[in-house]
Amino acid sequence: MKYYAKPLNKLINELSKLPGIGGKTAQRLAFHILSMEDQEALALADAIRTAKTSMQYCSVCGKLTDTDPCAICMDESRDKSLICVVESPKDVVAMEKIREYRGYYHVLHGCISPMDGIGPDDINLKSLIIRLQDEAVKELIIATNPNIEGEATAMYIARLIKPSGIIVSRIAHGIPVGGDLEYADEVTLLKAMEGRRQL
Amino acid sequence: MKYYAKPLNKLINELSKLPGIGGKTAQRLAFHILSMEDQEALALADAIRTAKTSMQYCSVCGKLTDTDPCAICMDESRDKSLICVVESPKDVVAMEKIREYRGYYHVLHGCISPMDGIGPDDINLKSLIIRLQDEAVKELIIATNPNIEGEATAMYIARLIKPSGIIVSRIAHGIPVGGDLEYADEVTLLKAMEGRRQL
Repeated sequence: MKYYAKPLNKLINELSKLPGIGGKTAQRLAFHILSMEDQEALALADAIRTAKTSMQYCSVCGKLTDTDPCAICMDESRDKSLICVVESPKDVVAMEKIREYRGYYHVLHGCISPMDGIGPDDINLKSLIIRLQDEAVKELIIATNPNIEGEATAMYIARLIKPSGIIVSRIAHGIPVGGDLEYADEVTLLKAMEGRRQL
Repeated sequence: MKYYAKPLNKLINELSKLPGIGGKTAQRLAFHILSMEDQEALALADAIRTAKTSMQYCSVCGKLTDTDPCAICMDESRDKSLICVVESPKDVVAMEKIREYRGYYHVLHGCISPMDGIGPDDINLKSLIIRLQDEAVKELIIATNPNIEGEATAMYIARLIKPSGIIVSRIAHGIPVGGDLEYADEVTLLKAMEGRRQL
């Protein structure tokens, strides 16, 4: 792209490395950034720098945080008997948004996927085992994604933990609220039937 | 969004100010930036800062540049008899990509739009008049967008310049190459008919 001046070219180039941002979008964003107020554009640059340098993974649960341990792990008012296992820090946010769950979390940073060469040792599983030695923990809720890798990971963890006497549960699969039965795929419908509850 | 640590929240907030980037995408981008290599993320931050501080508008043509006058305005090998008038710096890039046009440019930074309160004095028109006093200029090619405002701007400039004896031309409107006659709207088809050329 020799049509642009060097700094602009560099900016377009860097922007197009972001996921879902192709050449055209990167160009549009770059021109927008140049048309922004100075302080706004520099605020964006600083936000990237600050987030990148000050954010880290919580040494207890593996969540993204700017303090270690993270705010959730340090919250004494939470229910110590529950740990919810999720794949990524984003999933913690999704869970927190339901405003119902009051236990702690454990972030795996991925899931077991032999196809991609990711085994049990490649995810944040060891520290979970250590955390489970705390007798306060009564139930482990596995909230990995409902795909092949997520299910395999759930099964693996369940088999690993069950002998210790801790309850291992899996979040329910079924028709999403507001969803349409007609458009639900067979597997989801099957799971919804299997998971039916008496009214 | 109190679910995120402060630096992450700030980053999501700043990203979501960009055009076409909503809350969900900003969140996805922010998590991606945090998962990037340190140097890559900081390169993005620096690219924004450098582009914003070193890029400016060319004092001659109004194009975005890191040198003043810009590379095109300083290119003595170009055809001094031609000036192409466009709405935005992006349009200069689009024109340059055809690799055929060898004249100079003039960027209006918008177009006349009474509905939005933008009159002839609000766009970069005065400096164009001054440039046209150079006797070398023989033709002004108006390449504003083919919408109401663009056409109105083209008409305005044409009426303003014509008395001076300089040829004022407008880029052709018609069916895009690779386009389908069946799907062309009536106005485009009408323009294509009007602009037909003998083979």
